[in-house]
Amino acid sequence: MVAAQRDLLKIGQLASASGVSIATIKFYLREGLLPRPTLKTSRNMAWYDRSFVDRIEVIKRMQARFLPLRVIKQLLSERPQMTAEEAQLVAELRPVFFAQATRQGKPVEERELLGRFPRATREQLELLGAMGLLTPRTRRGRRFYEADDVRLVEALARSQDAGFSIDLFPLEDLGHYVELLGELAEREVRLFARNVSGRVSRAEARRLVESALPASEPVLLLLRRKLLLRAAEKLQERRNS
Amino acid sequence: MVAAQRDLLKIGQLASASGVSIATIKFYLREGLLPRPTLKTSRNMAWYDRSFVDRIEVIKRMQARFLPLRVIKQLLSERPQMTAEEAQLVAELRPVFFAQATRQGKPVEERELLGRFPRATREQLELLGAMGLLTPRTRRGRRFYEADDVRLVEALARSQDAGFSIDLFPLEDLGHYVELLGELAEREVRLFARNVSGRVSRAEARRLVESALPASEPVLLLLRRKLLLRAAEKLQERRNS
Repeated sequence: MVAAQRDLLKIGQLASASGVSIATIKFYLREGLLPRPTLKTSRNMAWYDRSFVDRIEVIKRMQARFLPLRVIKQLLSERPQMTAEEAQLVAELRPVFFAQATRQGKPVEERELLGRFPRATREQLELLGAMGLLTPRTRRGRRFYEADDVRLVEALARSQDAGFSIDLFPLEDLGHYVELLGELAEREVRLFARNVSGRVSRAEARRLVESALPASEPVLLLLRRKLLLRAAEKLQERRNS
Repeated sequence: MVAAQRDLLKIGQLASASGVSIATIKFYLREGLLPRPTLKTSRNMAWYDRSFVDRIEVIKRMQARFLPLRVIKQLLSERPQMTAEEAQLVAELRPVFFAQATRQGKPVEERELLGRFPRATREQLELLGAMGLLTPRTRRGRRFYEADDVRLVEALARSQDAGFSIDLFPLEDLGHYVELLGELAEREVRLFARNVSGRVSRAEARRLVESALPASEPVLLLLRRKLLLRAAEKLQERRNS
């Protein structure tokens, strides 16, 4: 028993390890935000494993973002893995989405791309490639970029024209986007598969994929604006308090 | 000494606790991705505290996103706190950004808003408000929504028109965006302050804020498209392997 409990925490230890009160933990347990205790050794003695500390960390972070309990509960209950049917749906619809996301356009050779956007350098293209944000193909020793890659290089060049120079805003900063938009993208794909699988026809699912970008992009941008406003406010409050 | 080492791990324990090899940890240490050991008790015996496990977790996640070491290193070295000058800059520029992000437009009363978008219900507005995504003001007992809130309700109604009905895609799913775009927004504000503070004039900083949205939004959307493509591919590979 002692050995089994070595990595288990009493509720008081869990509270101090996760920086919340015992009352808060009881509340989370009651609301179903936390699973049942890992081990009960008597009616009044319950033990919690280390995963509870992480989970409370996540709940705290979501509450700091003003997410209501009902939403937090749903986010926490997401299964991380897809079912076989969901995976099958993703496999079938991926080419449909690919056609939407990359759109038509002639591939452009690297030399031409650099000529078209004089601010872009070969080194920058290399770094964006290493981050998986550009995916050129090599044909007969020459590198070609598809239309979506060309558009990204163009958008970055425009933002440099607007004053967001590489000197002030290093390309490495894009790592934050890759990290967080990457996580969001994975959840979006999983959610799409889960919400749609077995509930609409394949033809309808295909139609949804075809309109996914025009339907979601305005929402995404408006959410970001709101969250930027809130972030600026919050960072200021935190300093003032 | 034993007491001091109770929560400290030897390199082998750290390796198994974080699911990487000892060689990987040595590599991370050499590359400066991990700080020096917490405690050295002899030339060959080093001890690591629990925070190393979390940090290795973060490094692994970033590597899974194909981030190059150089970028991971930069992300890990970000100071979470702003300096006093950076906070001052944010405070000064917040109204400038506010004007950009909310734009002009007449506030609309809730009743009119619901009339304009028949798909929206009072309950949906409540939930979006609880998530901090709508911020109506009450004047003489009536609720008014500013232009940016109206645009969000409109964008959501359009996405419902395109087939993304509330039945299939519950509004609670937006919690993922609040969580991850919220974290991204905080980093964006901090990075902006850090990159700009003391390096450009106030007038130039103001001009950058004024063009921040048009400069960054196309980049953001293109990155998301790329990351969605990659996510679909990755989720499929993970199942196939």
